[in-house]
Amino acid sequence: MDDAYVHGYHARENARLHDQADALVEMLHGDTRYGAGSSVLEAGCGVGAQTLTLAARSPEAHFTSVDISADSLAEARRRSELAGLTNVEFRRADISDLPFEPESFDHVFVCFVLEHLAEPIQALTALGEVIRPGGTITVIEGDHGSTFFHPDNAAAHAAIQCLVDLQARAGGDALVGRRIFPLMVGAGFGEVRVDARMVYVDSGHPDLVEGFTKKTFTAMIEGVREAAIGAGLIDAEIFDAGVRALQRTTEPDGVFCYTFFKGVGEKRNA
Amino acid sequence: MDDAYVHGYHARENARLHDQADALVEMLHGDTRYGAGSSVLEAGCGVGAQTLTLAARSPEAHFTSVDISADSLAEARRRSELAGLTNVEFRRADISDLPFEPESFDHVFVCFVLEHLAEPIQALTALGEVIRPGGTITVIEGDHGSTFFHPDNAAAHAAIQCLVDLQARAGGDALVGRRIFPLMVGAGFGEVRVDARMVYVDSGHPDLVEGFTKKTFTAMIEGVREAAIGAGLIDAEIFDAGVRALQRTTEPDGVFCYTFFKGVGEKRNA
Repeated sequence: MDDAYVHGYHARENARLHDQADALVEMLHGDTRYGAGSSVLEAGCGVGAQTLTLAARSPEAHFTSVDISADSLAEARRRSELAGLTNVEFRRADISDLPFEPESFDHVFVCFVLEHLAEPIQALTALGEVIRPGGTITVIEGDHGSTFFHPDNAAAHAAIQCLVDLQARAGGDALVGRRIFPLMVGAGFGEVRVDARMVYVDSGHPDLVEGFTKKTFTAMIEGVREAAIGAGLIDAEIFDAGVRALQRTTEPDGVFCYTFFKGVGEKRNA
Repeated sequence: MDDAYVHGYHARENARLHDQADALVEMLHGDTRYGAGSSVLEAGCGVGAQTLTLAARSPEAHFTSVDISADSLAEARRRSELAGLTNVEFRRADISDLPFEPESFDHVFVCFVLEHLAEPIQALTALGEVIRPGGTITVIEGDHGSTFFHPDNAAAHAAIQCLVDLQARAGGDALVGRRIFPLMVGAGFGEVRVDARMVYVDSGHPDLVEGFTKKTFTAMIEGVREAAIGAGLIDAEIFDAGVRALQRTTEPDGVFCYTFFKGVGEKRNA
């Protein structure tokens, strides 16, 4: 796992990220709108799951969406064309070495990226440099340690912990969501406001049972089965029991909870 | 602990419950209003922490607030008089054996009570019997398993687990919040809607750092120190390290998260 992006790049994974975006769009992005003529850097756009929502909601803003993976960018570009978006420019770039002048954007948007980084404050600081004073940065991350469910089950927690451990081995932090406030403050942003956005799923919300508990979260855990067993983190039997226990939470009397965090801060004057 | 209410009845505990009510009132109760002339049973009012808020927000509704403890009721009555409330009648009663006719209330409100009960569905079913068809029940509970924080700390989780274990030994369930939906459905209520209400605390919210993380949650954990150590659930050193770790989350770079659940359901027609 050391040399690969934990979430992988193959087709099934793309489908999962797309389902996730569909189910969570309103909750995570409903309050993000950029004004006419503003320039926004989306740092780490991946396959464009967030790009489409962002660009469609702020049709008069101009987006520059960058990612380090050429394959992801190709998929993001394809989706953007399919959606008929005209206000997004895709560009290959490493967010730790951005090819932009200082203060060249009004806003930065970074979603599900910090979890993969060993030095998130350093990355946020670098992103801050390309924002004009008074501009904003928006940061969104999940936190796998926020997961709880009914019926509770130790094997399910053990399976989830595998993803946390794999993320840590790859240099990231799957518990980064809870740290957004200190990270943003530590990177020098002002007026930092973070709020927690829990996905609460019971059988009264069949769209979330399907779109979040099954197709997003449980699929994500299932996706690391071979890596977790191969790394000796868990026995196959326990892992599989954990996945079954997560599936069990999608029955009529089950409940599943997961929390994302969204922070907004301002670039201070120099 | 087997014969005592886990939260105790002494003065310090009353102060804690009062601080908790102050900090959380708007989030938990802001959307609970009862119409003019409606009759509301508050089942398990304790020292009246919720009663004052409820009755003040719905001044034209009539509340009957019951509790099994005469001491708690005396304190609730004292507070109610101090606040000048005229729409609350206090009465000693056991919620498992209510002294009311069937369908004699428009609504029932029950907050921080199910966590103490071995048979919560049975209690909810009994409460349903005193509601008229078409009336509502509102259920609010916390869930100690929803707790996470930064910096993360194993001793803090172990100290929290002591409260969960003590609650279980006393026949209750400190993880009941996540189960509100299945419990309400299981008790026969219709149109059940549950939502999660997370208290997210970072140093940008000094009122919550003080009122929730310190004076409510950490104080509650500290309150079971002797019981937990006496029961052999934990070593004193680990418990104290856990409390210090919880206090650590109140520093400028710390974060603390806890989730309450609020459910509303309808009494079906017979």
